[in-house]
Amino acid sequence: MPRYALKVEYHGAPFAGWQRQADLPSVQGAIEAALARLEPRAHTIAAAGRTDAGVHGLAQVAHCDMERDWEPFRLSEALNHHLKPNPVAIVDCALVDDAWHARFSALERRYIFRLLMRRAPATHDAGLVWQVKNSLDVRAMQAAAAHLVGRHDFTTFRSSICQAASPLKTLDLLEVRAVEGRSGPEVQFDVRARSFLHNQVRSFVGTLERVGAGAWSPDDVKAALEARDRAACGPVCPPQGLYLAGVGYPVDPFA
Amino acid sequence: MPRYALKVEYHGAPFAGWQRQADLPSVQGAIEAALARLEPRAHTIAAAGRTDAGVHGLAQVAHCDMERDWEPFRLSEALNHHLKPNPVAIVDCALVDDAWHARFSALERRYIFRLLMRRAPATHDAGLVWQVKNSLDVRAMQAAAAHLVGRHDFTTFRSSICQAASPLKTLDLLEVRAVEGRSGPEVQFDVRARSFLHNQVRSFVGTLERVGAGAWSPDDVKAALEARDRAACGPVCPPQGLYLAGVGYPVDPFA
Repeated sequence: MPRYALKVEYHGAPFAGWQRQADLPSVQGAIEAALARLEPRAHTIAAAGRTDAGVHGLAQVAHCDMERDWEPFRLSEALNHHLKPNPVAIVDCALVDDAWHARFSALERRYIFRLLMRRAPATHDAGLVWQVKNSLDVRAMQAAAAHLVGRHDFTTFRSSICQAASPLKTLDLLEVRAVEGRSGPEVQFDVRARSFLHNQVRSFVGTLERVGAGAWSPDDVKAALEARDRAACGPVCPPQGLYLAGVGYPVDPFA
Repeated sequence: MPRYALKVEYHGAPFAGWQRQADLPSVQGAIEAALARLEPRAHTIAAAGRTDAGVHGLAQVAHCDMERDWEPFRLSEALNHHLKPNPVAIVDCALVDDAWHARFSALERRYIFRLLMRRAPATHDAGLVWQVKNSLDVRAMQAAAAHLVGRHDFTTFRSSICQAASPLKTLDLLEVRAVEGRSGPEVQFDVRARSFLHNQVRSFVGTLERVGAGAWSPDDVKAALEARDRAACGPVCPPQGLYLAGVGYPVDPFA
C-alpha cells in the first residue's frame, strides 16, 4: 500500500483535538472520514503531534496508507473536497517510503503562540489568539525564557495526565518577540524541541505571562523549573493562541 | 448632549451590513442596543461608511449622542461589555464637538481588500479573504489599476442600486501589492477616496482579478471605464475580503 505524507492546516475551535474520539469531532476523525469517501473502509492515520482541543494546525504532518496509487496532488484535492465544510485543509501531499512515519520519523516539532495585548475584545482574531488586557514586559519574559532552554527535567511544566515516559526533554528554542499584529501589539513565542510533554508550551506561556505582568521575576521561573514540581508552575494558558507550526524530518517529504 | 466619536472594529460575517434593519442583525443595531443598556431610550448613530453584508470594519468611525457626561474610555469599556458576544469592538472613543459628524465631517475613506491565492481552502482566514485558486499577474493588475486613479465618471463600477447623486468621483489611491499573508500569497489592495459609489471597490477588485487571470488586458479596463456602462464591468467580487480600514477627518478626533 502506498503511503502518503499530508501537511495539514486546521482551525482548532470546532474540534475536541487532533485525536479521534468516539462521540466528539476531531481533526483526525474528519480526515479519516474524508479518506473513507475515497477508499471505503476503516482508515487510521498517524500524526506528528496530537494537539489538544482548540489548538490550531499550520503545518501538522500526518500519513495515510492507500490501496490505490494516487497522484499526490489529486489525493490532496480529493481530500479537501470531502473535508468541506470542516476548517481542515490538506496544504501539501507527498508519496513517502513505507518505513516513513509521521510521528516516529519526526526530529523536531515547532510551535508558535500568539498573545494579543489590548483592552477591546478581538473580533477578526477571536479564537486565534490569547488576549490579555494589559501590556507585558517582553524583556523580562525573554530573560525568564532563557532559563528554560536546554535539557531539563520539565516536571513543573508537564500536565498531570502526561503520558511521556520521562520528564527529561531538550528545549531547543523558546524565542519571545514583540510583534505588531493586525489586531494590535502581540507577544509571539517560537518554540522548538524534538518532542514536548503534555501542556508544556501552554505551561511555559502561562508562566511567562505572569513574568510579563510583573507578578513573577525571571528568577522565579528558574526556581519553578528547579522545583520539579507541578504545583510550582504558573497558570496554564488557554489553547486558542497555540499553533503547531511545523515538523522537522531527516529529509523534508514535501521538498 | 455630549457627542462621542467611536472607532469600531467588526467581523462582517454575522451581519446583514452596517445599517440597522428591522429583522436582520446589523453592526449599527448591535451598537445601538448596547447604548440602550447604558441610557435606556432609542439611539441612532451615524457612521462614515455603510458597509455591506459580510464586509469587515478595522476602523469604521461612528458617533453617538449621550445624556450623561461619560469619560470616553469608560464609555468604550461599557459598550464593549454590552456588545458581547457580537464580534464588534469599540477600539477608541473621544469626546467631539456638537458640530462634528462621523459621516459629513469625513474627508477620506480608506479600504483594504485581501485576495488570497491558493488551492487548499483557507481555514484560519476563512471569511476574512476572497480566495482564488490560481496565482494572478500582479503587474498587469497594477497597470490596469493606474487607469482608474483620478477623477472619472465611474458609472461602470457602480451598483445599479447606488443612491449617490453623481457617478463622478475622484479615486485618490488604488495600490495593488503582492504580500505574503499568513495563509499564503495574497494580492492586497489599498483604496482611498473622499467617498465611494455603492459596490465600487468590489467592482474594481472583481474586474482587476480578471486582468490578473489574463482574461482581460489593462487596456480592457480603460475601455470599460470609458464606456460608462454598468454592463462593461467585470464580475463584482465577494465581500469577505473587504475592510473599511480608516476614515480621515480635518483633525483626527482620536489623536
